[in-house]
Amino acid sequence: MLCNLNEISEQLNGVLIGDGNVIITGVGSINAAKEGEIAFVTDKNLNKLDQCNASAFIVPETTIKEFKVPVIKVKNPRLDFIRLIKMFNQETTSSGVVASKTIDPSVTLGYNVQVDDLVVIQEDVSIGDHTIISAHSFIGKNVTIGMNCLIHPNVTVLHDTFIGDNVIIHSGAVIGADGFGFEWDGQKQVKIPHIGNVIIFDDVEIGANTTIDRGTIDSTTIGKGTKMDNLIQIGHNVQIGEHCIIAGTSAIGGSSNIGNRVILAAGSAVIDNITIGENCVVLAKTNVSKNLPENSVVSGYIARPHKIHLQQSAALSRLPETIKKLNEKLDELSRTKAGAK
Amino acid sequence: MLCNLNEISEQLNGVLIGDGNVIITGVGSINAAKEGEIAFVTDKNLNKLDQCNASAFIVPETTIKEFKVPVIKVKNPRLDFIRLIKMFNQETTSSGVVASKTIDPSVTLGYNVQVDDLVVIQEDVSIGDHTIISAHSFIGKNVTIGMNCLIHPNVTVLHDTFIGDNVIIHSGAVIGADGFGFEWDGQKQVKIPHIGNVIIFDDVEIGANTTIDRGTIDSTTIGKGTKMDNLIQIGHNVQIGEHCIIAGTSAIGGSSNIGNRVILAAGSAVIDNITIGENCVVLAKTNVSKNLPENSVVSGYIARPHKIHLQQSAALSRLPETIKKLNEKLDELSRTKAGAK
Amino acid sequence: MLCNLNEISEQLNGVLIGDGNVIITGVGSINAAKEGEIAFVTDKNLNKLDQCNASAFIVPETTIKEFKVPVIKVKNPRLDFIRLIKMFNQETTSSGVVASKTIDPSVTLGYNVQVDDLVVIQEDVSIGDHTIISAHSFIGKNVTIGMNCLIHPNVTVLHDTFIGDNVIIHSGAVIGADGFGFEWDGQKQVKIPHIGNVIIFDDVEIGANTTIDRGTIDSTTIGKGTKMDNLIQIGHNVQIGEHCIIAGTSAIGGSSNIGNRVILAAGSAVIDNITIGENCVVLAKTNVSKNLPENSVVSGYIARPHKIHLQQSAALSRLPETIKKLNEKLDELSRTKAGAK
Repeated sequence: MLCNLNEISEQLNGVLIGDGNVIITGVGSINAAKEGEIAFVTDKNLNKLDQCNASAFIVPETTIKEFKVPVIKVKNPRLDFIRLIKMFNQETTSSGVVASKTIDPSVTLGYNVQVDDLVVIQEDVSIGDHTIISAHSFIGKNVTIGMNCLIHPNVTVLHDTFIGDNVIIHSGAVIGADGFGFEWDGQKQVKIPHIGNVIIFDDVEIGANTTIDRGTIDSTTIGKGTKMDNLIQIGHNVQIGEHCIIAGTSAIGGSSNIGNRVILAAGSAVIDNITIGENCVVLAKTNVSKNLPENSVVSGYIARPHKIHLQQSAALSRLPETIKKLNEKLDELSRTKAGAK
Repeated sequence: MLCNLNEISEQLNGVLIGDGNVIITGVGSINAAKEGEIAFVTDKNLNKLDQCNASAFIVPETTIKEFKVPVIKVKNPRLDFIRLIKMFNQETTSSGVVASKTIDPSVTLGYNVQVDDLVVIQEDVSIGDHTIISAHSFIGKNVTIGMNCLIHPNVTVLHDTFIGDNVIIHSGAVIGADGFGFEWDGQKQVKIPHIGNVIIFDDVEIGANTTIDRGTIDSTTIGKGTKMDNLIQIGHNVQIGEHCIIAGTSAIGGSSNIGNRVILAAGSAVIDNITIGENCVVLAKTNVSKNLPENSVVSGYIARPHKIHLQQSAALSRLPETIKKLNEKLDELSRTKAGAK
Repeated sequence: MLCNLNEISEQLNGVLIGDGNVIITGVGSINAAKEGEIAFVTDKNLNKLDQCNASAFIVPETTIKEFKVPVIKVKNPRLDFIRLIKMFNQETTSSGVVASKTIDPSVTLGYNVQVDDLVVIQEDVSIGDHTIISAHSFIGKNVTIGMNCLIHPNVTVLHDTFIGDNVIIHSGAVIGADGFGFEWDGQKQVKIPHIGNVIIFDDVEIGANTTIDRGTIDSTTIGKGTKMDNLIQIGHNVQIGEHCIIAGTSAIGGSSNIGNRVILAAGSAVIDNITIGENCVVLAKTNVSKNLPENSVVSGYIARPHKIHLQQSAALSRLPETIKKLNEKLDELSRTKAGAK
């Protein structure tokens, strides 16, 4: 696809400064854009402009700097750059020659569903219009998958799972394994059967090799619009709200309850039976072992309000020096006192 | 399945208080049980009783509270609830129409073995009676799997692995990948070949996407009755005892030795070449880098006895305030001394 | 394979002490070697010699101790032991009866390529000589894989990935899933499309269930000779240098840059947009949130120079006691001062 800057600027509802007839052939990053490509600029990477060979830039409307090439001023360069990437690149999805696969006769497939090679779909499954089930995936009994979903290669969706519309699940994810529940009977651990399921609402994305366990009796639920990264562990009976962001290698213990728009940064962990209020931010590698009220921002090996954690952390850094100074002062005082006697 | 409370009470060897003719249609959680269902009550959730629509409860025999519906008093409500779940729900296992699969002619299958779609079983494998190998699983050369095992969809069991009876392995688990061993030869890392295997004893459960590496020369072993959650990493040559509980996202470094009945809570980690004695409890997110004697209870970023960790943690919390007060006292002393001169 | 000690000693260029006619049937570990086998000894396990039944040992050339059985003295016993393991054991790779699989007609296969059961290879893939693609693996569109690679069972390599020669990828690894990038538009998270890819250079090894995300627009790259363990998360646009060692359950956030020969020990984490210089060592469970200059050795919940972390950690351990003592001294001073008045 080719288009000129006038067309792009109009598409983005931006203000074009410079020659609108310049032809753009694609999008590029500020580090690697080639001639003919358009890149986007934020306040953070302004200093990289001079080494960049892009033929045009998308810049914040507040920018006052002058540029050697044409620019389009917009409100949110990142969001508009996303639109451009989509314009220039068809989304890549798995397809290939469909050969051997195993679909139970009881399965209901919507309009234009794509099922790729070596997929297994078991009894009483229903799959909505335009959904793609990529190669090597497994869809267990009685699963419902909505419209416009993209199940990447090698995903495992176990029995009774319910998945809404526009959901993306990446390779290696396992949805609906048994939760981790045992009861010691005096001689051995007795397994607690897991007869609940997993419910994933619309617009959710789930990362590669992430695991979401089924509820013991009820459901584990992932709220509308929540996005989850790779290698995340979600325990049984967890309730996650809407539009949350859960970054890679995080973990949420059984029966915990995460409010809407919560952010769990990379490697954070929430133990069992915790409630985290709406709009909380849990910073990277933070361990949450107590309930958090709405709008909390916490960090630390043991989660504390972020400001307090920074103070304690700074005090710990100075600790060897602080102790030394206190002892010196004390010795000084003792000496002068002794001298005064 | 339907039965009345008399039948259930008899089955559980409990004491029924109330109408034994009430018909029970299934089990429910205290949060979501519907009319006709039976739920179980512990001291922790007694306060939720009034909102619950269950038609009966299983309660601890020590309960003195009166209930609006019939109850069955038992010694351990959780264990008996597990029995009831099993009574009311057949365990769900994958089955489906068996279509294309690849089983080497040298494979020995026991009585009533179920092999699902798109399974690969290589040479010289032996599988015991009543074991289920679910869709998309891979069983490598010379693997032995015992009786009554459940291998969930998309499990990878690599060559020479030995698995006992009644073992459950969840989706995405990888058993027997090479351990992580290299030796720098001055110019590059040289791979240490791994010719050992993995031995999994009876009654073990292994969670989704968990990885257990094979031994370098000898075996990595998981002891009888040990239960492992999701996304756990077990290094080469690790020895794990019997009836251990290892919660999600934990990791055990190469050649470490874990005694019987050890509990590793979620996200805990043990470095290489460590010995942990019997009955130890490693609390969540604790990093163990020294041997632990039997019956230790440890916590902290650097594992310490739990009580000591709590003291140090409390002292750290107060540290900025403590330092301030100490300095004030010192200044006060200096001033009065100066005044006294 | 059988050979005698003269032959082995010659092969290793070592110095044989004892009877060179002793027949060796295989290699064994110091803990489990049987009669007829050869084991290797380091300074660390010298004390286990007496319980070992090996018929010969490989020992460091500096050893002065006398042995009851023949020994071969060499410079680096570990490296030579690796050579012996290879001599005595053919590397085991998956093979089996090749049955059903799906290879697009556009795929280019080199000389002696092995493609196992139930593999899917999509359009425009190219695979080099002697490479093995094991059962259940998925190779997406436009992937290039070099010579002598070993793709273990159940690996997912997504579209546009480039893999060099001699690369080993273990089961369950996912190469090229979308990075985790979203932009809040005021009402929902908008997905940032990922049109970049993953480039894996020669001699890399990637552990089981590890995930490496594709670049947003450019490439995520893993440098020549780098070795990665299990359950590791590599974010989009990460650049990893040559000959790095990245141990299990580590994670590297998006766009971070890791220099050559860096060691990330088990469970370590690097946040987004960090640069780590050449030859750095990040100790186990360390969280790196600031750039590190070359040759740094860091540890701690918040990465600090290792020596400083040890000092602070020791100060924290003594803190409750230190505070108590300081207060006692202060009280003592106050009392004597009061008495002096």
